[in-house]
Amino acid sequence: MTNGLNVAVLGATGAVGAEILALLEERRFPVKTLKLLASPRSAGTHLTFGGETLGVEALNDTAFRGIDLVLASAGGSVSQQWLPKAVAAGAIAIDNSSAFRMDPNVPLIVPEVNPEAAQAHQGLIANPNCTTILMALAIWPLHQVQPVQRLVVATYQSASGAGARAMEEVKQQARAILAGEDPVAEAFPLAFNLFPHNSELNELGYCQEEMKMVNETRKIFSAPGLRISATCVRVPVLRAHSEAINVEFDRPFAVSEAKQRLIEAPGIKVVEDWGRNYFPMPMEASGQDEVLVGRIRQDISNPNALELWLSGDQIRKGAALNAVQIAELLTIPTPVAV
Amino acid sequence: MTNGLNVAVLGATGAVGAEILALLEERRFPVKTLKLLASPRSAGTHLTFGGETLGVEALNDTAFRGIDLVLASAGGSVSQQWLPKAVAAGAIAIDNSSAFRMDPNVPLIVPEVNPEAAQAHQGLIANPNCTTILMALAIWPLHQVQPVQRLVVATYQSASGAGARAMEEVKQQARAILAGEDPVAEAFPLAFNLFPHNSELNELGYCQEEMKMVNETRKIFSAPGLRISATCVRVPVLRAHSEAINVEFDRPFAVSEAKQRLIEAPGIKVVEDWGRNYFPMPMEASGQDEVLVGRIRQDISNPNALELWLSGDQIRKGAALNAVQIAELLTIPTPVAV
Repeated sequence: MTNGLNVAVLGATGAVGAEILALLEERRFPVKTLKLLASPRSAGTHLTFGGETLGVEALNDTAFRGIDLVLASAGGSVSQQWLPKAVAAGAIAIDNSSAFRMDPNVPLIVPEVNPEAAQAHQGLIANPNCTTILMALAIWPLHQVQPVQRLVVATYQSASGAGARAMEEVKQQARAILAGEDPVAEAFPLAFNLFPHNSELNELGYCQEEMKMVNETRKIFSAPGLRISATCVRVPVLRAHSEAINVEFDRPFAVSEAKQRLIEAPGIKVVEDWGRNYFPMPMEASGQDEVLVGRIRQDISNPNALELWLSGDQIRKGAALNAVQIAELLTIPTPVAV
Repeated sequence: MTNGLNVAVLGATGAVGAEILALLEERRFPVKTLKLLASPRSAGTHLTFGGETLGVEALNDTAFRGIDLVLASAGGSVSQQWLPKAVAAGAIAIDNSSAFRMDPNVPLIVPEVNPEAAQAHQGLIANPNCTTILMALAIWPLHQVQPVQRLVVATYQSASGAGARAMEEVKQQARAILAGEDPVAEAFPLAFNLFPHNSELNELGYCQEEMKMVNETRKIFSAPGLRISATCVRVPVLRAHSEAINVEFDRPFAVSEAKQRLIEAPGIKVVEDWGRNYFPMPMEASGQDEVLVGRIRQDISNPNALELWLSGDQIRKGAALNAVQIAELLTIPTPVAV
C-alpha cells in the first residue's frame, strides 16, 4: 500500500486539467488514489495516469467522500457549487477559478511569493489568474529590495487562456485565412489578429482580466495600496503569455541589482542575450516550468522605474503548475499506511 | 496635356511602394508623369498605374532629371545615396526611411500634427516611423489641451513593418506549424509567436525602433523634453500595428474631454462600444486611412494619467499614406500647361 493522498481532479478533461495530471506524474506527487471528475458532458471519457486508464466521473454529492485533496479547474460556477461540498467532506480544495480569489477567508497563493499564507486556509485555497502569477513572480524579488510603488503592464495573452477550444479555433481560423477563405469566429477572431481582452468591463473601463491583475497582486503581495494599471490583450499565440511591465519605485533601482535578484529568484529564468537580441518568447516559454524574464532596463522616462519583459507558459505556471505547487506546500497529514 | 508633377516612386516594388501607387491614384494626386524606380534587382518588372503598364527602372545618375517629386521607400542606405542627388537635380524628396529623420535640416512631418514644419524643407522631408505616426496622431490632440509629460507605450507590431517578404514568411510558417511541420524562419520566428522588436539595441537596452518612438515624437511635437519609454514587440499580425499607451499629464485630464478631442481630431476614428466590448483591432484597421483609437480611460494607478489603445494600418497611415499626405501639403509650383 502506498502512503499518499486521495486526490480528485475536477475539470480533468480541460487544458489545465490535463496539465495537472501530467504534473502530478512528473513531480511524483504522493497520489494514493486518483479520481477524475468533470461535468456530466465530459463524464465517461477515459484518461491515463501512471500507466492506468481511469474513467472520468460526473460530479455528484458523494464524489468527494474520502478525498484529501481536490485540484479544481472547471470554471467559477462549478467551483462555487461543488468546492464547499468537497471542503465539508474533509478535503482541501485548490481552485483555479476566480470564484474565491478575493474572499478574505481564502488564501491566494503563488508559492514563490507568499507560501506562508497558505497555512491559514480553511479548506479552500485559490490559485491566482495566469497573468497575475507571471507578473507576481517577476516583481516580487524586486519588491523585497525596494517596495514597488506602481506597475503599468500591457499583456500579450495566448489563446490557451480561453481554453482548449479557443486554441483549436485559432488554428482553424488560420487555416481558413491561409486558404483564402473566411475564418469562423465562435469564441473570437484571433488568427492574424488581436484585441483587448474581452472579459466584462467595469464602470472605469477596465476589464475583469485587468482588475484581476490589480486586485490579486495586491492580495498576494499584502500591499493593498500598490498602484497598478493593466491593459490586457489577446494575441494569436497558442499557450504562453507575455507581459511588458513598467515598474516604478520610490527611488532608483540599479539594473544590475534587479537582474541579480531575478537571476537568484525561484521560478524565474533570466533570458537576455543583448548581443544576439535574444529575449523571452512565448514559443520558448511554452512547456517550461520557469517564467522567462528579460530586457531588464532602466526606464529612460523615469529615473525611479525599470522596464522588463516576460513570457510564461499560461497552462503550466499560469495555472496547473502553480496549483500543484500549492498542493505540495500543504502539510496535509499523510494517512497511515494500512 | 495635364497639369501636375513629374513624380518618381523609389522602391516601387515594395509593400509601401505598391501602396503609394494605389494612393496616388485613389487620391487623384496631380501626377503628370510617373517614373518607377527600384534597385537593379527589381528593375525590369512591370506595374500598372492609371490603367497604364509601366516598367520599373534601375536607379541611375540621370533618373531624377526633370522629376519634381520623389516618394522614396527603398531603405536607409538607398535613400542616403540617392536622395541628395534627387534634390540636387531639383526634386523634392519625401523619404520613408530613417536616414534623415533626425537631421535638424530635414522636417519630420505628420500632416495632422506639424504641417507647418514642412514648409521649411530644403528639398528633403522625412516620413516618421510607423509606430511614431500612429502614436503622434492619437496623442497630439490631447497634448494641445494639456501638455503630455510622459508616455509609456507597448506596441503590437505586424509583420508588414519588416516588408512584404516577412508577411509572406509568417504565412508560410503558419502553414508549416498547422501541418505539424517545422517552420522555417529566415527573417524571424513569428507565426503563433512574438518577440521584442529585433532592431539594434543601444547601451541602455532600448532598441532602435523604441528610440525612434522617443526621438521622432519629440521632434514632431517640438517637445525635446517629453519623457517617453517604449517596448516594441513584433506580433503575428499581417499589416496593422496596435499600441497600448499610458499618457501622463501634470494634472488630471477628464476622460470625456479626451474622448471628445479625439473624436474631433483628423486622421482618427474613435472605436469604442463598451457594451459590446468592441475596440480597435488590427483586422479592422487594415486598409483604413484612419487610425482606430479606443479604450480611453482613467488610469486607476495615477490620477494624472489616461490609458488608451489604438490600431492603425502600418503600410497605409504608418507609411505610404502619410508620405502622400506630406506631398499634398507642399505648395510645389504647378508647371504651366504646355
